Amino acid sequence: MNPPPNTSEVITNAYREDLADRGDITSRAVLEPNHRSSGVIVARDPGCVAGVGVMRECFAHIDPATRFIGHQSDGDIVEAGAPILEVDARTVSLLTAERVALNLFGRMSGIATATRAFVEAIEGTNARITDTRKTTPGLRALEKYAVTVGGGVNHRFGLYDAILIKDNHIAATGSIRTAVEAARAAVGGTVIVEVEVDTLDQLDEVLHTSADRVLLDNMSIEDLASAVERVDGRMVTEASGGVTLETVRSIAETGVDIISVGWLTHSVRSLDVALDILRGRGESDL
Amino acid sequence: MNPPPNTSEVITNAYREDLADRGDITSRAVLEPNHRSSGVIVARDPGCVAGVGVMRECFAHIDPATRFIGHQSDGDIVEAGAPILEVDARTVSLLTAERVALNLFGRMSGIATATRAFVEAIEGTNARITDTRKTTPGLRALEKYAVTVGGGVNHRFGLYDAILIKDNHIAATGSIRTAVEAARAAVGGTVIVEVEVDTLDQLDEVLHTSADRVLLDNMSIEDLASAVERVDGRMVTEASGGVTLETVRSIAETGVDIISVGWLTHSVRSLDVALDILRGRGESDL
Amino acid sequence: MNPPPNTSEVITNAYREDLADRGDITSRAVLEPNHRSSGVIVARDPGCVAGVGVMRECFAHIDPATRFIGHQSDGDIVEAGAPILEVDARTVSLLTAERVALNLFGRMSGIATATRAFVEAIEGTNARITDTRKTTPGLRALEKYAVTVGGGVNHRFGLYDAILIKDNHIAATGSIRTAVEAARAAVGGTVIVEVEVDTLDQLDEVLHTSADRVLLDNMSIEDLASAVERVDGRMVTEASGGVTLETVRSIAETGVDIISVGWLTHSVRSLDVALDILRGRGESDL
Amino acid sequence: MNPPPNTSEVITNAYREDLADRGDITSRAVLEPNHRSSGVIVARDPGCVAGVGVMRECFAHIDPATRFIGHQSDGDIVEAGAPILEVDARTVSLLTAERVALNLFGRMSGIATATRAFVEAIEGTNARITDTRKTTPGLRALEKYAVTVGGGVNHRFGLYDAILIKDNHIAATGSIRTAVEAARAAVGGTVIVEVEVDTLDQLDEVLHTSADRVLLDNMSIEDLASAVERVDGRMVTEASGGVTLETVRSIAETGVDIISVGWLTHSVRSLDVALDILRGRGESDL
Amino acid sequence: MNPPPNTSEVITNAYREDLADRGDITSRAVLEPNHRSSGVIVARDPGCVAGVGVMRECFAHIDPATRFIGHQSDGDIVEAGAPILEVDARTVSLLTAERVALNLFGRMSGIATATRAFVEAIEGTNARITDTRKTTPGLRALEKYAVTVGGGVNHRFGLYDAILIKDNHIAATGSIRTAVEAARAAVGGTVIVEVEVDTLDQLDEVLHTSADRVLLDNMSIEDLASAVERVDGRMVTEASGGVTLETVRSIAETGVDIISVGWLTHSVRSLDVALDILRGRGESDL
Amino acid sequence: MNPPPNTSEVITNAYREDLADRGDITSRAVLEPNHRSSGVIVARDPGCVAGVGVMRECFAHIDPATRFIGHQSDGDIVEAGAPILEVDARTVSLLTAERVALNLFGRMSGIATATRAFVEAIEGTNARITDTRKTTPGLRALEKYAVTVGGGVNHRFGLYDAILIKDNHIAATGSIRTAVEAARAAVGGTVIVEVEVDTLDQLDEVLHTSADRVLLDNMSIEDLASAVERVDGRMVTEASGGVTLETVRSIAETGVDIISVGWLTHSVRSLDVALDILRGRGESDL
Repeated sequence: MNPPPNTSEVITNAYREDLADRGDITSRAVLEPNHRSSGVIVARDPGCVAGVGVMRECFAHIDPATRFIGHQSDGDIVEAGAPILEVDARTVSLLTAERVALNLFGRMSGIATATRAFVEAIEGTNARITDTRKTTPGLRALEKYAVTVGGGVNHRFGLYDAILIKDNHIAATGSIRTAVEAARAAVGGTVIVEVEVDTLDQLDEVLHTSADRVLLDNMSIEDLASAVERVDGRMVTEASGGVTLETVRSIAETGVDIISVGWLTHSVRSLDVALDILRGRGESDL
Repeated sequence: MNPPPNTSEVITNAYREDLADRGDITSRAVLEPNHRSSGVIVARDPGCVAGVGVMRECFAHIDPATRFIGHQSDGDIVEAGAPILEVDARTVSLLTAERVALNLFGRMSGIATATRAFVEAIEGTNARITDTRKTTPGLRALEKYAVTVGGGVNHRFGLYDAILIKDNHIAATGSIRTAVEAARAAVGGTVIVEVEVDTLDQLDEVLHTSADRVLLDNMSIEDLASAVERVDGRMVTEASGGVTLETVRSIAETGVDIISVGWLTHSVRSLDVALDILRGRGESDL
Repeated sequence: MNPPPNTSEVITNAYREDLADRGDITSRAVLEPNHRSSGVIVARDPGCVAGVGVMRECFAHIDPATRFIGHQSDGDIVEAGAPILEVDARTVSLLTAERVALNLFGRMSGIATATRAFVEAIEGTNARITDTRKTTPGLRALEKYAVTVGGGVNHRFGLYDAILIKDNHIAATGSIRTAVEAARAAVGGTVIVEVEVDTLDQLDEVLHTSADRVLLDNMSIEDLASAVERVDGRMVTEASGGVTLETVRSIAETGVDIISVGWLTHSVRSLDVALDILRGRGESDL
Repeated sequence: MNPPPNTSEVITNAYREDLADRGDITSRAVLEPNHRSSGVIVARDPGCVAGVGVMRECFAHIDPATRFIGHQSDGDIVEAGAPILEVDARTVSLLTAERVALNLFGRMSGIATATRAFVEAIEGTNARITDTRKTTPGLRALEKYAVTVGGGVNHRFGLYDAILIKDNHIAATGSIRTAVEAARAAVGGTVIVEVEVDTLDQLDEVLHTSADRVLLDNMSIEDLASAVERVDGRMVTEASGGVTLETVRSIAETGVDIISVGWLTHSVRSLDVALDILRGRGESDL
Repeated sequence: MNPPPNTSEVITNAYREDLADRGDITSRAVLEPNHRSSGVIVARDPGCVAGVGVMRECFAHIDPATRFIGHQSDGDIVEAGAPILEVDARTVSLLTAERVALNLFGRMSGIATATRAFVEAIEGTNARITDTRKTTPGLRALEKYAVTVGGGVNHRFGLYDAILIKDNHIAATGSIRTAVEAARAAVGGTVIVEVEVDTLDQLDEVLHTSADRVLLDNMSIEDLASAVERVDGRMVTEASGGVTLETVRSIAETGVDIISVGWLTHSVRSLDVALDILRGRGESDL
Repeated sequence: MNPPPNTSEVITNAYREDLADRGDITSRAVLEPNHRSSGVIVARDPGCVAGVGVMRECFAHIDPATRFIGHQSDGDIVEAGAPILEVDARTVSLLTAERVALNLFGRMSGIATATRAFVEAIEGTNARITDTRKTTPGLRALEKYAVTVGGGVNHRFGLYDAILIKDNHIAATGSIRTAVEAARAAVGGTVIVEVEVDTLDQLDEVLHTSADRVLLDNMSIEDLASAVERVDGRMVTEASGGVTLETVRSIAETGVDIISVGWLTHSVRSLDVALDILRGRGESDL
């Protein structure tokens, strides 16, 4: 699984932010330019690893001559203390590259770890965990990639790749039927049409349209179960709204196909990771 | 207080990410282009507001003709349910702009709220709360701005605007004294020189240099207290390492000047905010 | 209908290309800076108009003070000689802006005109005309917008917003079933899954998968008719491959749902349009 | 002959357009990451090849490890079915890179083929074929390069690198003489000054100025012949306006130096080219 | 005369450089946000003014609400102490905008002032002063504009808009004739062909080609005079190489058409200008 | 010492400026593509070398296969005629790359040479030479790097990395004390606070604040000496204002710590450097 195509842009921007025009003034001032070190990125908490390739690209961005020994791949489960990636380069390169690499990797692994917890919580049901558009501006593709690493499946990437008709669209259009028909006419059959509903009555309206999916928003467990029964396989059903690790299994057991969890990306806790310098090797023999 | 200078770049990138080349296909398909609505951004949780100006700029980015009525300013404390900003525009504009605006505002307010909690926890002491470089790549300036809104003070913005000599620098250089002298020689007096130490012995070494600040990393409360005593006002003292709301007050009471809290930005919970459409007004009379 | 979100980027790049760092050296050298003129953009051929808003944005990009009187909107059918848009501005602005505005408008109207011809050729059938990815690099969103103006419906915008499994994917994977299952597992239900087939035997394989659409590539009219019969409404059917104005109606009459026409964008003839300067008004009284 | 300096920017933009943030979801979902294939780009129509280097750069942009065997170079004439370039890479790379590479190469070869047809049509005369500014926004340099590959010579690249005084400039200035003098004074002798005329009377006026070239716009063959006679070698003569393959030879035989053909770039038919996958080689031994 | 088309890009980059992500921390920290001031940009040295429009655009970039009263226009000659432009805005805006505005205006006026000195030194001769490509990377268009403000005429803007065959080209090609013929064949008649020569013998070779201009490099006054005589109006003659205010008149008096002066842009002394704050007006009544 | 992190951006922009979309039309037209040459960059004046790495990056930007033999490093003092760097590449690459490389290297070496002259002029005193923000827009980081190469130390890089309270700030705030306190409160201890004063009375005010540095602007030698005495080591003292090579030593002898010299960057004379082509080697054997 490769990181998304905009990864190198994200990394370039991140280092521009951290280095500005002057660069790492500490490392440039105090280190011999050719002093080399080896280091290892270590997890300080247990979790699901995501972004090893991104982290490599970070170090290589600062110094293309960095050498790597990989210990873990995206999707691996690690204990606290597990070595993830060894790096060997000029010390000034390692210390300049460190923070951005850890920030990205920690955040992605935090998202994968959280996703995996949700996926495990519903194991044995038919439901799948999906993300939302409540992502960090600028990092959406990386965060959605981390969700897939954790075992989730991606919802739409933006406003552009799926129709999702919400309450405000319906209110402004007049009826669910009118809105779905307008959407179908506009986008033809290349794009999925989904409708968000709050009540079972609205659901009945949706069932009389050609919508592909229905998003059941903030419904009780009972209503979700009724909804799944009424849909009876004619559409994909998605549950959403304040889903937590405590509630997710009972939601899944209602039989919904998809459960979307905003929390995966909008309030995630980064996995704690650190770069331990193993040894300074003094003057390089390169 | 104005948002940072790169705000409009962040907003431009965020909408490019959410809209791509095709735009909001749902709103374009189902809404009459001239249908107008009013809406209000409401906090669903209590918190400290940060990013009202950023949110305005988001809506204005999508539609410069958006009209605003402000109810809260950055730094205000709000209850759940409090209206923050009213917006009035074409419905298609409001719904296209909504998510990015809320994502940025929710994150910034989450950071300000967390910062404020730390600031209140140490009220009455002489310490100040500061941030770290564990920020979201691409959003550092907005996140550091949110820290100041919450009552914190910013640490360095990147590797470029302050010297911070860490253990790995010292190891590669040979001694604290050598590292500090090299830093001073390189950057003269325009930039602060800070040194990170783990032990009181290292602190003693630092005290014999011209460093301006000392970062006391992961020390026990007892060691922090001893450190403050030894420094005796000759340098600025900063405590760091796993600081939580539970531990921050006892740290502050040791007499340190600055307490840095990575958690403020690397694992923050976004403030829950929503856009409630008040009324659709049908065809605009503009 | 608004032009796509990346329109202003396209326009900015187009003028950078035409002006470089030195600008319109002819107009700057020979015209009085405040000399004003009115002009009218006129169609020299009959056709379907697309890109009036884009053309306005071009003139406004060079001179925000340009004034406009609109005569036609996107989707209108015009005769040769029909006035489309009147512009009034400093003469230097009009002449600097002219070529890029006409290039974009002419190309978009050419695409809309061609699309409309195909749409009219199949009137009365249930089929719809769609585009392909054989667009001009950098102009895809504008070209796909022009297709919708001409009455077509857009196929996927890129490799990112729909699954289309082609012969090479199938060959590398081993079987149609394996490929469809892998796709479903990867993208869940937010994205349409379509499979391209060359033969009726392959079609039968597709019918035993969960694919949403089947692309019938380069089939004879007879095979297309058999295919539609076999599918019997269980999937969306798309015909493609060397479709021309001569062949499109007999294809549509086979009962396929969608007909994709690469020719719409890869070899289109621009609509011939010109800017006629109506009168020079000498020194502006502004 | 190298492609123009902005080639890699064009390619980067083209893939960003086709891949967006999510990438080639089909190939990523269904192909084994290390599955390799060889393929060959084949012309399906006869024509003049242009853009082989560009096409290589496309594949290398997606995968720097792609290997190539070249069969044709820019300017070569090929029959239908001729192999142009062999590529060998991971299958996912080939299929992701394919469409943009073919779109650019097909368009450039279409332009070169059309140019060559015009060049051959006037063989034996002294005239040369040139292009106009009616190019595709964003692709001008590549398209003008293709014109040279086909045997044409480039007209100005934009508004910035040659003076071309048209009817609207003359109308706003008062006289041809005034306009030419203003142009000469402004740009000195580094830039060519050309004047567009519609009539022989205007031509006489131009002949009394220091203009370097005269553009004879939309003149009859008789008038062109008279014009060439009157100019008598004192200026470069250029014929323009609705030039077709049918009319170009009689225009050339009037003795004009240059014939500009907008059709070369504004309505060109792409050369039909395809990527045939030769064999899938399964797991790579790399 | 308008500033060149890339002016706003230069200004955007310049403020990004000066403000980075954090902005003007002094003004933001110590000034009341609504405090307003008036100021006047004053020349501290006598000179020729260039860049007033650029300076306005700088202040407007930081604060679009800035108000201006103009006292001088590009090309005006000012004494030390002369007011050039009055500005009125929020004090924080003025102080944030000041340095970039003065840096650009001072440099451009320095170039215009130097150019004017050379132009005056050769008054009464037929020669004209021109610039070179020894400009500041990134500022070429602004610097070349300043040359025209000072009364000079621009040489080529880059490697792309004129042929200039130098000694190294000739050495690699074999002969002047071969090089000129290759150039003519490649670029046709839209671009000027100039050849650089060191000796009168080389000049004789050039005179037997179709070159438009000859650059007489580092020749003595005597040789220049001979060269002009030999050319006898058949080509434009340009003198270059170590031209100073002391030598320029005797060079002009040899009868050359053009004298190029690298010193105008590569080693210019900025005009000394300052922003004097006239009065602080305290809280704005806006 | 490495060049600053934005070096490759500066180089990319510089070549885009010099090449635009069409490239080096002379070299492409007249040189055989595979003709190779060796050349040497030579100083024509004595000076202090700065930017050798930048110059290498320039040639490598145009042709990654360029080979180098280094003769001098940044900071070396060279005589007129000294070889600095040998380059070997395709002739078309060398001639295309030449001008930008020399423009950047000449400017940087000019700055380093000037800086060194000031540094030598104050040898034996305790003062250090520093730069200002009067740099070339877009080149600040390279110019400030050149100052360090010449033995100077950098002042702040922009408005963002140090507080400098000037007369206009004080006037708008009311008092020096108020301004310093506001600054301290806003930025905490990570950023230096400096105050500019014109008189000894103002200096006394500053001495009662927590400012870190005082900038003594345009003071007489006597006042500077008094100021140093009054400060008595409690703050860093900086002298500024019209400093020249003639006055700098007497300023240094007053005992100030820092002397800032705007002239280093705003009016520097580029070091005269040239590329001498050593031999053309005809067809490459590569």
